[in-house]
Amino acid sequence: MHANHFYENLQLPESPAGRPLIAINMISSLDGKVTVAGELKPGSLGGTFDRHTMNVIRSHFDAVLAGGNTLRSHPFYLGVSSQLAEQRVSRGHFAQPLTVCLTKSGQLDPNSPLFQKPPRPPLIFTDTLGAKSIDPKIKEVANLEIIGDDQGVAHIAQILNTKYNVKRLLVEGGPSINYQFLQVKITDELFFTLAPRLVGATKDFTMVMGEKQLPQPKQISLLSAHEHKDELFLRYKLKW
Amino acid sequence: MHANHFYENLQLPESPAGRPLIAINMISSLDGKVTVAGELKPGSLGGTFDRHTMNVIRSHFDAVLAGGNTLRSHPFYLGVSSQLAEQRVSRGHFAQPLTVCLTKSGQLDPNSPLFQKPPRPPLIFTDTLGAKSIDPKIKEVANLEIIGDDQGVAHIAQILNTKYNVKRLLVEGGPSINYQFLQVKITDELFFTLAPRLVGATKDFTMVMGEKQLPQPKQISLLSAHEHKDELFLRYKLKW
Repeated sequence: MHANHFYENLQLPESPAGRPLIAINMISSLDGKVTVAGELKPGSLGGTFDRHTMNVIRSHFDAVLAGGNTLRSHPFYLGVSSQLAEQRVSRGHFAQPLTVCLTKSGQLDPNSPLFQKPPRPPLIFTDTLGAKSIDPKIKEVANLEIIGDDQGVAHIAQILNTKYNVKRLLVEGGPSINYQFLQVKITDELFFTLAPRLVGATKDFTMVMGEKQLPQPKQISLLSAHEHKDELFLRYKLKW
Repeated sequence: MHANHFYENLQLPESPAGRPLIAINMISSLDGKVTVAGELKPGSLGGTFDRHTMNVIRSHFDAVLAGGNTLRSHPFYLGVSSQLAEQRVSRGHFAQPLTVCLTKSGQLDPNSPLFQKPPRPPLIFTDTLGAKSIDPKIKEVANLEIIGDDQGVAHIAQILNTKYNVKRLLVEGGPSINYQFLQVKITDELFFTLAPRLVGATKDFTMVMGEKQLPQPKQISLLSAHEHKDELFLRYKLKW
């Protein structure tokens, strides 16, 4: 099943100097919503094939990052299936990408699946105050990076690159995290599933949410488009 | 130029009994936004080809409808180019589709281009209170349909069909108008341009905006997808 996925042999560009290559992967409804009734979960918008595609995309990255809100609503390791893990090993990578969490509050549930025997210790970025709120049980299984209040995602990307050898970073939201990576112009690609759904509720979230209009890339190019049962799988390149 | 547009010979289904066939046409950014810095205007998201495509789509419809907000921000007749007008005449249609405006407030500018020698008298739907606010100069060039407070877009679609012989109705927003047509399950198709842009500002509008989650169509099928310079032109069929 899905033996020849169109992203199986995905060719990603080399990472820029000093930071990983960074891609965002999201799914939205036709009306731009990434949540349904306030929830951002795999499966609420996408089908089985979309979840498989998410796995295949992850399999090409060294680390997968999500914000605290996203991980609180779906607290699982951001990993790949065993079949894809084998492929990764055969390519000379860790079996699983590194799960990276950005949290200001440090409010994470130590009993969530993410912290029950994770395949690799998740890496948590937080500030001094957030670190105090992190449950001691989490500190036993996860690694902590404490950053300054004023240090944004560009700094985090740099640490991931230099200290954790992350050459390819996949960002999986939520909307505020995506915004931060776009605002500082370090997002190189966007993987985007357009689900044949209509949500319509004003309060539901969109893919990128911040206070101001984003700086515009010089160009956003559609690298590829694939259709599967009315879902569109799009890959864009962002040139800043 | 654009001699063989992919929508030139668009085949639309027959209209259902008692109402026109109804399609929505919108453009959004990759992050689902239909406005940029609060403005909903042709050209703020799409390129020249998108505006041409909007014209070609309009050319297949008997009437083009927009809400008061949309027409206040871009107060032009919702018509087609002279070349497309000729094609319409050769197919036995009026040279221009009928412009239909839905306004509760009745606040429309009599000096806007929409009311300066329009090719056909625009048709305005409003209630008793809104009608009182409509400028007398507008009443000289436009037709008025006064509907009850509690009468929604299903009723309007019915009037358009029976009294104005509209067999194909194109809805061009805004978000609240789109919501109303989806909420009562009388939207048959969605023409959707996905622009290679990222907006990001939370306050900007999405394609469909209402209080609650919309009822879900039984199926939303992708009928066709065309790419032109990184813009995707998508056509969906909604089965209720």
